[in-house]
This record gives sequence, structure tokens and C-alpha cells, in this order.
Amino acid sequence: MHETWGDHAALLARGSAWQPGSVGIVTPRTIQVASPAEPLQLELGGELGHVEVAYEAYGQLNAKGDNAILICHALTGSAHAAGSHAPGQVPGWWDPLIGPSKPIDTDRWFVLCSNVLGGCYGSTGPASTDPASGRPYGINFPRYTIRDIVHVQKRLGDALGISRWAAVIGGSMGGMQALEWAALYPEAVGAIVPIAIGSQHSAWAIGLNEVARRAIMADPAWESGHYERGKQPETGLGLARAIAMLSYRSFASLEAKFGRDRRPPGAAALPGPQPSTRLAVEMSFEIASYLNYQGVKLVERFDANAYIHLTYAMDDYDLGEGRGGVEKVLSGMTMPALVLGIPSDVLYPESEQRALAEQLPDAEYVSISSPHGHDAFLIEYPQLAARLRRFLNGLD
Amino acid sequence: MHETWGDHAALLARGSAWQPGSVGIVTPRTIQVASPAEPLQLELGGELGHVEVAYEAYGQLNAKGDNAILICHALTGSAHAAGSHAPGQVPGWWDPLIGPSKPIDTDRWFVLCSNVLGGCYGSTGPASTDPASGRPYGINFPRYTIRDIVHVQKRLGDALGISRWAAVIGGSMGGMQALEWAALYPEAVGAIVPIAIGSQHSAWAIGLNEVARRAIMADPAWESGHYERGKQPETGLGLARAIAMLSYRSFASLEAKFGRDRRPPGAAALPGPQPSTRLAVEMSFEIASYLNYQGVKLVERFDANAYIHLTYAMDDYDLGEGRGGVEKVLSGMTMPALVLGIPSDVLYPESEQRALAEQLPDAEYVSISSPHGHDAFLIEYPQLAARLRRFLNGLD
Repeated sequence: MHETWGDHAALLARGSAWQPGSVGIVTPRTIQVASPAEPLQLELGGELGHVEVAYEAYGQLNAKGDNAILICHALTGSAHAAGSHAPGQVPGWWDPLIGPSKPIDTDRWFVLCSNVLGGCYGSTGPASTDPASGRPYGINFPRYTIRDIVHVQKRLGDALGISRWAAVIGGSMGGMQALEWAALYPEAVGAIVPIAIGSQHSAWAIGLNEVARRAIMADPAWESGHYERGKQPETGLGLARAIAMLSYRSFASLEAKFGRDRRPPGAAALPGPQPSTRLAVEMSFEIASYLNYQGVKLVERFDANAYIHLTYAMDDYDLGEGRGGVEKVLSGMTMPALVLGIPSDVLYPESEQRALAEQLPDAEYVSISSPHGHDAFLIEYPQLAARLRRFLNGLD
Repeated sequence: MHETWGDHAALLARGSAWQPGSVGIVTPRTIQVASPAEPLQLELGGELGHVEVAYEAYGQLNAKGDNAILICHALTGSAHAAGSHAPGQVPGWWDPLIGPSKPIDTDRWFVLCSNVLGGCYGSTGPASTDPASGRPYGINFPRYTIRDIVHVQKRLGDALGISRWAAVIGGSMGGMQALEWAALYPEAVGAIVPIAIGSQHSAWAIGLNEVARRAIMADPAWESGHYERGKQPETGLGLARAIAMLSYRSFASLEAKFGRDRRPPGAAALPGPQPSTRLAVEMSFEIASYLNYQGVKLVERFDANAYIHLTYAMDDYDLGEGRGGVEKVLSGMTMPALVLGIPSDVLYPESEQRALAEQLPDAEYVSISSPHGHDAFLIEYPQLAARLRRFLNGLD
């Protein structure tokens, strides 16, 4: 039954079906953007002498190198935004929106998505080998910020011959990157589309990240951040994901999907750790199984130390810091902006997006109607498609 | 600085100050309400051959035994609702509302509050000694429900000569009890005041309890529920509390109180476990310290297995179960009801309270204006006072 639980692959398969254009089979690529000769200086001190970036690209870059669109992924996302790595495999995380004649039209745009600095999908991060020790960085990976993530993306664009991004687009942590791009490299950014994100991380969002991190750190298998490859703190990371999932959804969507349903007696065991007490077995609410399952799925594909580092980078995010405050920096972002908010988002309340749009000089605000909360930017494809298509079609 | 962090004692001290009447020094009492000869049959099977109930009472019971008001506490509450156990000690958790000439006026009413079955403030619960083994029940305490909690309160009232409750009042889990009283013993309930609670536990609320329980169960010190006295899973219980605290407050209240404030370098260490990584030390947001501190405070005063059992009882709560559904049971509750909801409550959204009030035949609905979320029923005393005073004054 869990195949129907808002499984991302199933959602994408359904979402992809409503519009036929596909970028087809894509090849993941990796490029080195920092070396001992050209190290990456980090915003808060320290440097990385070796940085690789994993990326994917769809469409053709024109001769002037100015028809590029950058897609920025969220916390646990990857560079695999569209197409498939092999026939029949799960399409990228925003596949319904990216492709020939799709809203982010690869017949017109050269679309690029890269795994963030500090991620665990091919870019250099805590799970990468530290050249100094020959072992994974682990928790000792240097502290980096969303600004550092953008600086790495800038190096990637320079290496690929991209003179200017026609648009930088992203939801959640991806939206932080879109806004930081506009602040750090205004000449290189034609337009931005920040989705379901505000201008700084709130106490509420920091608090939710904090309890998720504490779940990881409380797991003895975390080994103070020095677990070996293949032996990561599965229980802690799974619990961190379960906590986060509640904040990504909403009261109404969970009520509609699960309500007070219980798993039928004798139902097949779900993947992952089974309830350890008689009480848990007797209770067996579907929502509990769902949260457990979401944790198991993340543990299979994500690194616990990357989760810790990335959530710290999100918590550090404050667009106004060192720039005279949020109002000042936003008033200087004169490129066109499409700001998308979600009224049911409990993690980044719509008021944050409305405030962004009010302070950006050339912003259009659009509310995405959805019961699904924050995750609506990965679910409500028809609405996203219509808004993105119109906005991107209107760009020079 | 943490003394100002919404510390409950400080809040109560301030709240108590706005109105002078006090019940003064009170004596906690305990009474046995089940014995091997008169065991408590539990709703879902099994029985308890020995049940003690801790309670406090304020005011005088009249000769007819019908001027009693029952106050029902929330998840981590106790029977200590008003007054002090000794001069200078922290007053009870609803002290601003209970006392001579206060809204719940002890010059008129005999006010009683008891620790719930399964609690850890003197009533029989998981931390109590199992007569069969001579050791604490721990996780093996039988599964009980909110209805069982009410049955125990009924036995307590019978033992004290209370023929009828003029009103049963409670917020959160206390509100569940008020509603179950009206369903189980309608002849014995003159009026109800359910606050910040709905007619059944939602998927959202169950999910939040589930991640909190998993935090406890993931702590190796939990010992599969069989930890020894004095060696409870402090890390897990503290984390459970931190998760719950976020749901008890609101985006706006945490933003106003903490925002992005960080602890000053060199600030004195807070009680409890210190950050274990360089990153955590560098980040040091006040909201993180606050959540940690809230966990430490709960660990000092609450039992982890009681937390697990009580949250399961909350998750089991469905007023309509076995009664033909919520609508049917509510339509039969003809006593006057004052339903209080909090628009900023993210745990039990106001829509749940409005639905209750619409379905109860003789209900008045009042919205408590507050930025503080669910916990407003422990904070917004002037509003609570005005509404409770008017409602209780109007009772026969």
C-alpha cells in the first residue's frame, strides 16, 4: 500500500504523463572547480583545495552563452532534475517542468542543475574523501554557507561558458540560492524565481532543523560524526526525516491521506525497523508507518553528516547579513522576479514570500493553491507549469 | 537569560500577580480507587488490581455534593493546579484562574484536580511498582485510554461524595477528558469547557507524538522500556519534549522571542548536555538553547514510559469510536459547553474547536487571541479568566 503514499517516484511518473515532452536519457557529469592552485575560499573562513561538482544539463547553450537557466535543488535533492539516467528509470525531481515544449523549454533554454557544495550526490561534501587524511571529511567538513554554494555554481557556469543566467529558479533551499545569486552576482542573473522561501531562516525553521540534527547526533552510530562509510546512523537520520516530513506536509493533507487509519492486522511488514513494543504494534497508525517509511527511504540515499551540514547552512541563511539588512539588499535586486508561495506551507509561511515580493522592486507574487504544504512545489505541477511558462516566455 | 524564556514558573508568578486571591498552602492527597477485590477493568482489555490517584482539592464541598468542578490536566501536567505546597514555592499550573474570587471561585466551588491514570505525579502509572513483579511496570503497564482515565476520576469523585460535577474543564489532553466525561457520564456532568482540543486525534497530532516517542525509543538508555529508576533515557525524552515544544508554540511567537539571536560568545553554559560539535558551538542559536533547556526541564520531572503511554492514549482518543461516530455522540451532549480555541494553535487547529462547537447542541465558541499557539491556554490568563468567570457564573 505504501506505493500510494505520495511516493515521489509515483508522483513524478504521474506528473510527467500530463505533458509528453521529455529530455530523454541524460548523462550525469562531474567537473572540478577548485584545486590546490585555485582553492575555494569559504565565506566564514577556511578553504577547500579540491571541489568537484556533479551536474546535469538539458538543451543547447547558444553561442553567446546567455540562454541558460539554473535550477537549484532543495535540502535532499540532487542534480538529477529531468530526464532519466537509463530507460525506465525514475525521472528527475522536476521532470514535469523541464523538457522540449515544457514550461522550462529545453528547445529554447540550456537548463542546468548541479548538486550543491556539501551535498552527497556527487559534489564534494562530508562523505567525500579529505585529501589531507585519506578518509571522509565527516563532521569535520568545513562550515559553508548558501553563499559558498552559489560561488561554486558560479565557477561551474564560468567553466561551461555561461555568461549570464536568464533565470535562477529554486524552491526551499533552492530558493535561498536563487536569492543569493541575485545578491552576489546581479549582473549575471536575468531573473529569479524563489519558491516557498523567505529572506532569512526563522526561529521556527531553525528549531525544526535543530531537533532533526539532534536526532542524528543522539544516535550512537553517529560516532560523534566519524562513522565509517556504510555504517551511518540510520535510526537518527530516519527520525530526522520523519520530523522534517511533518513540516513539509500539512494538517489537512495528512488528515485526508491517513486520518486515523490503522494498518490491518496481519498486513505485510513495511521496509525498515519494525515496532519494538506491543503498544506500537497495537496502535499501528498508517501515519506512523508512513513516517517510518519516509525515514527508511532517505537513509538509503542520503548521508547523515551532509544532512547536518546542509541544515546548518540553511540556518545560517540571512539574505541581509553583511549587506545592511534584508530590506536594503532586496530593494537593490532590480531583475524581474516571480515569487511563488504556498498558503498551506507551515515551514515557510506564505507571509514570508509575500514580504519578499513586496520588497523586491520588480516582483510578481503568485499563491500556489494546495493542501500539501511546503512540498506543493514538488507536487502542484499544473499550477507551477502555467506560472513558470508565462514568466519565462516573457523574458527577453 | 533563560529565566525569561517563557519559563512556566515565571509566567505563573506573573499571572498570579494580576489577581490577589489565592488558595494558599495546599496538601497533595492520594486515595486508592481500585483493589484486587474491585479491580479497574480497562477499556481495551486487562485490568489493574491496584490504582492510586493523587489529587488536590480547593474550597468546600457542599452537603449535596454538587458544587464540584473538575480540572483536567494536559500531557505533562499534574494534580497541582493551584496554591502552593509550601510558602514561596511555585504555584500550581492554573493558579491565576483558581482561588477565592478568582474565575474558578473557590468561595463557591469545590475544585478538584487529579493526576491521570498512567501519569507520574502520584497516580498509578508505568513508574509505579507492579505488585506482580515488585518492579516498575515500565513499558509493560497495560494499554489504557482517555476513557479509562475518566473512569478512574469517576471512582475518585464517588469516594469523595461528589454526586455531580457542575463543570469539567480542561485544555489539550484535559479537554479530551472533559469531552469523554460528557459522553460517559452525562448525568454527572453539568457543563463542560474543552479548550484547544478536537473530537479525535488527527493524523498530524499522531505523527508528532510518533516522532517524539521514537526519539525516546531510539535512546539506548530506554532499554526497550525496562530502564531502572533514576536511569531513564534523558536524551530521548529531552528530544521528545523539544519536538513537542515546537508544536505547542507558533512561528510568530518563536520569531518574536528568539528570531535569529545567537548566544553571545563566552556566555555561561546552560543546564543540560552541551553542543558536541564545533559547528553546533559556532551556530549557537538561542532557539536551539531554548529547546535544549525545555528538554532538560522535562527530564527532571517526568517519566519517559509515562510519556510513551500517555501519548498513545491521546492518539487512541476518538470521541465517536464505538458510539456511532463523532456527530452522533456530540449531538447527544446537551449540557452547556464553553469551547475555547486558539487561532495560532498549529497542533489542534482552531477548525477542530469550531467543529466541536457547531456540533454540540448548547455550545458557545470563543476564540482566544494569542500569538503563542497551543500553549496559550497556559498563558493568556486575562482572556481565559473573563470567559470562564462569565460561563461559570451563569451555571445554575
